[in-house]
This record gives sequence, structure tokens and C-alpha cells, in this order.
Amino acid sequence: MPSDSLVDSLGTWRRSHYSGDLVSVPPGQEVTVFGIIASIRNQGRITFVILLDSQGLVQITIGNDADEALQKRFGELKEFSYIGVRGIPKKFPKAPGGVEIVPSQIKLLARPKTTPPFGLFSKQVPNLETRMDMRSIDLRRPAVQEIFRIRHDLLNNMRAYLSGNGYLEVTSPKIISSATEGGAALFPILYFDKEGFLAQSPQVYKEQLVGAFEKVYEIGPIFRAEESRTMRHLAETTSVDLEEAFVTFEDVMSTLESLLVSAVSAVQKKHTLPKNKLSTDGRFTKITYSDALNVLDKDGAHLDWGDDIAFTSLKVLETRIKSPYFITHWPTSTKAFYIKPLEDKPEMSESFDLICGSLELASGGTRIDSREFLEQRLSEKGLNPRAFEYHLKSFDYAMPPHAGFGLGLDRLMMTLTGQENIREVVLFPRDQGRLAP
Amino acid sequence: MPSDSLVDSLGTWRRSHYSGDLVSVPPGQEVTVFGIIASIRNQGRITFVILLDSQGLVQITIGNDADEALQKRFGELKEFSYIGVRGIPKKFPKAPGGVEIVPSQIKLLARPKTTPPFGLFSKQVPNLETRMDMRSIDLRRPAVQEIFRIRHDLLNNMRAYLSGNGYLEVTSPKIISSATEGGAALFPILYFDKEGFLAQSPQVYKEQLVGAFEKVYEIGPIFRAEESRTMRHLAETTSVDLEEAFVTFEDVMSTLESLLVSAVSAVQKKHTLPKNKLSTDGRFTKITYSDALNVLDKDGAHLDWGDDIAFTSLKVLETRIKSPYFITHWPTSTKAFYIKPLEDKPEMSESFDLICGSLELASGGTRIDSREFLEQRLSEKGLNPRAFEYHLKSFDYAMPPHAGFGLGLDRLMMTLTGQENIREVVLFPRDQGRLAP
Repeated sequence: MPSDSLVDSLGTWRRSHYSGDLVSVPPGQEVTVFGIIASIRNQGRITFVILLDSQGLVQITIGNDADEALQKRFGELKEFSYIGVRGIPKKFPKAPGGVEIVPSQIKLLARPKTTPPFGLFSKQVPNLETRMDMRSIDLRRPAVQEIFRIRHDLLNNMRAYLSGNGYLEVTSPKIISSATEGGAALFPILYFDKEGFLAQSPQVYKEQLVGAFEKVYEIGPIFRAEESRTMRHLAETTSVDLEEAFVTFEDVMSTLESLLVSAVSAVQKKHTLPKNKLSTDGRFTKITYSDALNVLDKDGAHLDWGDDIAFTSLKVLETRIKSPYFITHWPTSTKAFYIKPLEDKPEMSESFDLICGSLELASGGTRIDSREFLEQRLSEKGLNPRAFEYHLKSFDYAMPPHAGFGLGLDRLMMTLTGQENIREVVLFPRDQGRLAP
Repeated sequence: MPSDSLVDSLGTWRRSHYSGDLVSVPPGQEVTVFGIIASIRNQGRITFVILLDSQGLVQITIGNDADEALQKRFGELKEFSYIGVRGIPKKFPKAPGGVEIVPSQIKLLARPKTTPPFGLFSKQVPNLETRMDMRSIDLRRPAVQEIFRIRHDLLNNMRAYLSGNGYLEVTSPKIISSATEGGAALFPILYFDKEGFLAQSPQVYKEQLVGAFEKVYEIGPIFRAEESRTMRHLAETTSVDLEEAFVTFEDVMSTLESLLVSAVSAVQKKHTLPKNKLSTDGRFTKITYSDALNVLDKDGAHLDWGDDIAFTSLKVLETRIKSPYFITHWPTSTKAFYIKPLEDKPEMSESFDLICGSLELASGGTRIDSREFLEQRLSEKGLNPRAFEYHLKSFDYAMPPHAGFGLGLDRLMMTLTGQENIREVVLFPRDQGRLAP
């Protein structure tokens, strides 16, 4: 078994405290802490090691009056080494966290063979591609970690809101037999001897489930073979999907607003978020698609009725409309086959997009609940109704009126953390150019 | 827009109460309820409709002294229709939930064109394949729904335990560039112009992440191209993965035990679970692999040291060992490349499986934390270390000692709900023969 003679085994050592808990340790009590070395500073007769664990920093101090073996061990330490330290913490206001440990024992548990091209607290870091190539090391930087601690709390708070409001968490299959929507391309997969695809949305499943459970949500991966390389698209991303029976698009718009206000406020209580467009006390703005076109027109950014509102147009609207805002009543032609047209104006639909800044965060609407009408819309969209037979069959057994939305979790995270590139808020991003690590 | 002249639109109607809340409505207050018709019973001058919503049942009663239009509407109702009802609830001890509503208005929101081959409360139902072909309708049966309400609460309680104990929720990519483990076959995917695979485990990612976050967990889909059709395997299933720095397999075994005891007790407070092998007050049993072989030997079910303990052998052990139990210290040769051998007996490993009844629920161990040793083990397992270069590179920058486990959520659900077939606990199961619905 290859082993590094300089490296100690964990043995019976276990963490007794995190860095953040050390200030409240009774005087004289020995502790065991673990972490990664953020910096080593030698000031003549004293060496300071700053140790980072998942709760923060602690200073380990050793003087040249210490045990010789211990001094030698200390001399072998490098940044990015993982160590365990035993000793008695002492109040030391100048140290991070207000505590220092003069160690009685130390274990070097792992040491780097290669030194990363940045320190844990570096302001200067390599470009995004280099960082993503060594993402597991990039993620050791506390500035990057904060993004994922925010994500953790955001998810917990969104689930708390949804469960608290009677939505059942569901898991739909990610391997499917046919396209859910036209438009975005699918990844084909060899499923035993058949052709399958990766689901680009749980749409048909969540719709089928409202006939059984009335209110459902799913937070899971979706896959889109996006050929365009932008700062806001990925091939694999996390979607927050909700679907509900006996309501319309206006109800789920309110639900989406309450969900975001509730979850974001909870996250803000725990994290210092950069000033962002979701930090709103008021209600979300609402504007119809037609009115949005008028706003664009006045700004010299004319679109024909029926055009999609592309990113460049959202950039114009951003300067005119307070974020976050809903664009409602989209042309039926711009929306997927399952979106319900208005009864009296079928060229318009019971639909909405949620925009924040120039970013589309979510999209939703009332769904068509009749099989015949779905078949008609599928054909109009150039999709083959026979490929949707299992889905359509659900409607033969009756489906209640329903509405729902899909919310892009990673885009929401971009907004919350002020990141310009969606890759920054995903642990291991996937795009046309990147399938590893 | 095709529409059914018998069907009403939702209009401004919204639910005011769920069935379960009706007993506490002040006398004389009108309510609006929605649901699916479970049964219709005509007793001469009175018709009883039993309505099911996500909270339970409510009886709708109409006599032949009622408004004629309303009586006509009532006559058009069928089982599996979705309706809305307005009226004043009255205490009626004989009715389900102790309340009946004599309606003032009714809306028929959706009606079946086809009648399912079972009722919502049928004891006799079609075989599994037929039910899975019409799964969205099968799921309208309350007996089936209870499984997914248990799953919802189980997930909530597992996440509460994990978050409460400092584990960070992470999301690893499901599209990967190479196999994580030998053994189970991978689904190949065409990723733009490259070959990719669906992840059969988040193993390498969760390991890389402990270098940054120390304690992580992920609950998400995993994919295995299992050719065998058994009652306990699926091609797509949900895995609960945990990984932690500065601990060994013995620590994560304790964590797994505490997680299960905590989450299952919480679920049991809310649901009546069938008698199952996880309902334990005591600690989980532990037995070494070698001792398990001795037990088998005494039962005439001899295995050679180094053999895997297959399902048939687990069936024998089930009669001898109190469930749930851990089998520890597996032969290194039976385990994946990343499992750490014992320092003094490298043919044995710091590993465990959690067994419940004859079902393997989880598997875990201490991980190897040296690059050289990982390369050696990869080669011994016939895997190409170059395919793992991104993963191995993380170890060049130092990786703390760590351990973890993977727990099969769907198998845990089988155990909890007493289901013999894993397909019963998955909304839309996937196996070699099934890619739809």
C-alpha cells in the first residue's frame, strides 16, 4: 500500500470543535481541530498557521521554545496541507475568531504535491476555464464556497415553503422516450437496445401528477443540448418545477412570488448578499407582452407582435421596468404546445415569464386540459401527437384544470449572488465545450 | 379551441377548504371544495357523491327536492370526474370525515372519456404492467398515494437531519465523461460531438468536494444499465449519498444509523407504516464479512472467502441475524477501487453494507486518499487511471482522509412501506423493458 512517510494517519483523532465554537470553550480544556492550511507566517521566533475549517478560521501559534519534534513537524507544513491540531485554545483578540491554539500535538494528514496557482484567499485568480479545470481546488476558496452555502440555504427554504404550503415533492424520470417540448434540442441516449432521451423538463410528468396529488413540485436536473455558448445557459442545470390543480396562471404567479420572497428573505437573514434585483420589499411588477412591446417601441427597439422577446430586448426593458417583473399574456405562437390560449383571444395565452434584470428566471402558465385541444396544438407545433400517446391517454381519464411554472435555480442563484456567469454557481458545470471534471 | 359542452370552466372558483378542514368550519359558512369523484351512490330520493381531495374524503348529498338544474348536473357525474362544489357543510357523523355538503352549486371540471379498469378504492386491481402503463391513473388511488406521501416526509426528515448535522447539500453532474466504478454498466449518451455517460454514482464528485466542504450530501438520480430484471433493481433510481472528511467508515456507519433512526421515527409519527424491519428501537447489529460466512457455513450455505454475498445468501442470513444489520470488513477484491484496505490486513477493507431483511440498502467505507494508491487500485481493477485523471489530480493538491456511503432511497422506501417490488415506490419506473410513460 503506497504511503507518504511524512503523512500521519487519522488514527483515533476526531474533531472536538469547529473553529467557530472555540471562543466558548472553558479555559484549560483541550480541543482537537481539523482543517486546511490557509497561510503560514514566520515572524522570527514565532510561526503562525491559519487553519480553515467549514466554520471559519483559527490561528495555530508555535514559538521556538516549543518541543523540538513539534517544531520540526511545523516546519514541514505547507499551504493547502490538511492537518489536525490538539491544544488548549486561548483568547487572543487579534487572531481571526478571537482565539489561538498553542498546539500540544499536530498531525499532518495530507500534503500537496503541487501548489495551486492561487491561495485560499487570493484576490487574483486564474481565468474561469483554468479554475473549472481544477474546480475541486477552486472550491476550497471560501469566497467560492459561500455561493454554495447560499444555495444550500435557498434550497432548504424553498422546500420548507413548498412543503408548508401543501406541495408534494415528486421525482420524475430523467430518461424519457420522446421530446417534451419542441425547440431546445435533446441529448439522445442508448437505452439498452432502444433510443431514449434525457428529459429537458418534467413537464408532462408533473401535469399527469396533478390529477393524483393536486399540488406537486420537483427540484431536479434538466438537460438541454444548447449549442449557444452564453453566460446564462448550461447543458445540465437544476430546475424548480411546480404544478397545481384547480388554479390558473395568475394563481401560480402569486405562488412563485411568495415562494421567492419567502425563501430569499430567509437566506438574507443568514447571508450578506450583494445588492441584487431580487431584494424587493414590494410586490413584483406585472406587464403584458403587448405593453412590453410598446415600451420597447418607445425606446427604438421595435418588435413585431408575435416575436419572442430576446436577451437584447430584455436588456432594454431592464432600464425601464423595475425588477423583478412578470411579462404576461404571451402570443400563443411563442409558447409550448401545452400552454392554454385565452378563450376570447386565442392568439394570446395564459402565460408568464418572470424576468429579473435581463435574465428570464421562470416561465409558467395555465395548461390545456383537453386531449383534443392538445393534439391540435401538437400538430400546429409540428410535433407528432403519437409520440405523446402515454401523456394524452391521461387526459382521456379526465384531467383537472391546472397551471404551473418552471424556475431556473441556477439563474436564481446568479441573481442572488451577483454572478455574471452561470458557471460560477454550479459545482461542476456542463456546456458544449465541457464534459469534465 | 375544442371544448366539451358539458364541462364547466374554472372561472373565479377557488378552493376555500380541503375536506379535512370542513369539520371546523363555523355553522352556516359556505365553502368551495374540489376533488375527484370516488363513488356515486343513488338511494332512491337521495344521491351521495364521495369526493376525494388531497386531504381525504367529503360526502356531497343531493335530494330529489333540489333545484332541477342541479339535479340534472348531478345525474351527469361519473366516477373519476373532477368537480367543484359550493355549499354549506353540515355535521353528519356517518359520512367520511363527519361532514356532508348539500351543494348550492356544482361545476363539472373534467370528465373521463374512458373508465379505468378499477375504482379509486378497489381492492382488485390489474397486474403491475397494466398499472404502470396507466401509471398516472393508478396514482389516483389513495393506497398508492400514501407511498409517495411517506416518501415526501422521509426526504424532508432526512434532509433536516443532514442539514442539522452540518452536511452541505450538493449537486454533482449527471452527464460524465468516464465510468466511476467498474461493474455496473453505463448508459452512453451522445454529448454534442463527444461520447458521454450517465452517472451511476456521484462518488468521485462527492469525494472531491470533501476537500472543500468537509461534509456533503446529495439526494439525486443515478443510472445503471442493469440487464437483470429483479424486484429490487431499476435503471434509474434515487440515491442518498454522503461523504465526510476526517472520519472513517465506523463514523459514517454511525451517521447512517442515526440518520435512519431519526428520519424513520419522524415518518412513523405521521404515518401508519406496516410492520417492517427498520422499526427498531435498539442499535443496528454489526457482523464482519468473515463471521457472516461462518453463519452461512453452519446453515449449509458455504461461500469461499472473497465471494460476494449474493441475494440468495442474504435470504439465508435474514433468518439468522436481526435486521437491520451491517456486514463490515469486506474483502478488498469485492469492493470498488476507492475503498481503503486495512493497513495491517490489506485483503480486507474498511467497508460496510447495510442489510435490511434480504435487501442491501446502503454501502460505504473509508476512501483511499493517496493518488499513487488509487492508481494502483484502478489498474488492479482493470480500469484505466488516465480516464480518472481529473479525479486523481484533486489528490495531487492533497485530500483529507474521508469516508462516506450511498443509500438507495427506493430500497429504503420498499422496506418502510412493505413493498416487494421496487416499481411500486417509484412514480414512473425505468427498467430494461420500460421507458414509458
